[in-house]
Amino acid sequence: MSKWTTKVFYTLITLSLIGILSYASAGTNNSSYGEDRAQIENLQARYMFALDFGDLDTFVTTFTEDGILDIIGMQWQGRKNIKEGLGSMMPPAGGGAPEGQNASESKDKPLYRATGRHNISNIVIKIDGDKAVGRAYWFHMGNNNPERKAGLDSYGYYEDEMVKVNGQWLFSKRRIYNEQMAEWIGSDKNPCW
Amino acid sequence: MSKWTTKVFYTLITLSLIGILSYASAGTNNSSYGEDRAQIENLQARYMFALDFGDLDTFVTTFTEDGILDIIGMQWQGRKNIKEGLGSMMPPAGGGAPEGQNASESKDKPLYRATGRHNISNIVIKIDGDKAVGRAYWFHMGNNNPERKAGLDSYGYYEDEMVKVNGQWLFSKRRIYNEQMAEWIGSDKNPCW
Amino acid sequence: MSKWTTKVFYTLITLSLIGILSYASAGTNNSSYGEDRAQIENLQARYMFALDFGDLDTFVTTFTEDGILDIIGMQWQGRKNIKEGLGSMMPPAGGGAPEGQNASESKDKPLYRATGRHNISNIVIKIDGDKAVGRAYWFHMGNNNPERKAGLDSYGYYEDEMVKVNGQWLFSKRRIYNEQMAEWIGSDKNPCW
Repeated sequence: MSKWTTKVFYTLITLSLIGILSYASAGTNNSSYGEDRAQIENLQARYMFALDFGDLDTFVTTFTEDGILDIIGMQWQGRKNIKEGLGSMMPPAGGGAPEGQNASESKDKPLYRATGRHNISNIVIKIDGDKAVGRAYWFHMGNNNPERKAGLDSYGYYEDEMVKVNGQWLFSKRRIYNEQMAEWIGSDKNPCW
Repeated sequence: MSKWTTKVFYTLITLSLIGILSYASAGTNNSSYGEDRAQIENLQARYMFALDFGDLDTFVTTFTEDGILDIIGMQWQGRKNIKEGLGSMMPPAGGGAPEGQNASESKDKPLYRATGRHNISNIVIKIDGDKAVGRAYWFHMGNNNPERKAGLDSYGYYEDEMVKVNGQWLFSKRRIYNEQMAEWIGSDKNPCW
Repeated sequence: MSKWTTKVFYTLITLSLIGILSYASAGTNNSSYGEDRAQIENLQARYMFALDFGDLDTFVTTFTEDGILDIIGMQWQGRKNIKEGLGSMMPPAGGGAPEGQNASESKDKPLYRATGRHNISNIVIKIDGDKAVGRAYWFHMGNNNPERKAGLDSYGYYEDEMVKVNGQWLFSKRRIYNEQMAEWIGSDKNPCW
């Protein structure tokens, strides 16, 4: 081929390879903000189900092996420690206080078991490659009273650090502020950005 | 052309076609987790607006033609049946109890119409092609009292099945657990994963 | 080159350019529903943190330069006006009523500062290029009472208009309906679609 023809060939090969790389990156596209955020939101929701239904085995798998759960007053590192530490503070599986625990319940037969439910909202996530930081609100509702009347009873916010391990987002650290406790109430200043 | 030149031409054409396919698939990329989840979240939110504002015509379009709404105590299949069944249980359009319905309101003129609002949170979605299963929490707030004071009054969780029909995600089945009713309270065990 | 060769060259160049455009659009892929919705959800959550923690400088950056905040009873256009207008209505930074503000608090020493927290849910977003319209519910919880007991105290919904400016989604208009005020209660009809 002529020199000119050769140059054009190499140019075309380069352009085509860029096209192929494009295809490859689109096919395994886990790195966009939308994809990562979707995975992280799912993680944050699975955490809540596992917590409220007393499924600590699933709960700890939302953390990295050496992940940290920090509730200000207490902190545990590692799945085993989180399970033991949190487990010792939780009511029995079923997600609610056991029947009869409440003094006012002992007089009357409770209707059915009480439940407690944590909810997450206002999720802010900043992602940088395989690391992410998050802020979000949480609030808790329950019906641990004789009438099983639902009510909101506490709220606060999260400061989260997450990492992507083998393609899966996990908590490396979750810090929980609780605005019903003076020592755990959190910042006066905007903890977000 | 020489044999060598011909080979290079076909190689380049192949590479370029892959690039074009990449472009096409990126342009109609509805199959990633993030894209599907975004569409499903939108569906779940539209469901709530339609429900609370008494817009049953829109409400039933969030279900497939033969979709099932199962509130444990009752179950309806198909858009027409859902509309009739749910419609017979709902307060008049406007999303709240009619003025004066509450006994305590008959003494004083109510301030304005009452409203009720369902909210969804902790959305977990697992997607497999054109099918998806979901879990989520719901809670309800209202102000059906003389002072129109807002309050949380019930909560529970959803077990959802969704399908993608002509590019649009719809509920094929929604099951609603309500933790204010002994028979509809749901599982002791984590219904999620 | 021969006529045939020339034609093939131009064809290949065209095909390759399409591949490159594909790569470029995938690399800066901000135009899919999932990507845009993720960015908008993040915006809506950052708005809440800034609002509740009294960070008005950050708050106004969630609006376009000439954005409108319309709370029905009042309306401000432009970041400066929003900051001044909303600032004059807000409690001091810290997100809650100052200690001792509540009459019942003056008798007893308050436990710690009160806080108020807005939450967003049921987010519906329709996107058309660089413009979007949104609907969502909001609800507010607080603990401005001597016992710092958490409670839900108000709710309503948003009607939003958003635009993408230099790749970043911002509110061009947010209208806030508040169902605890007769004049600001909003529509009887479904404001969504």
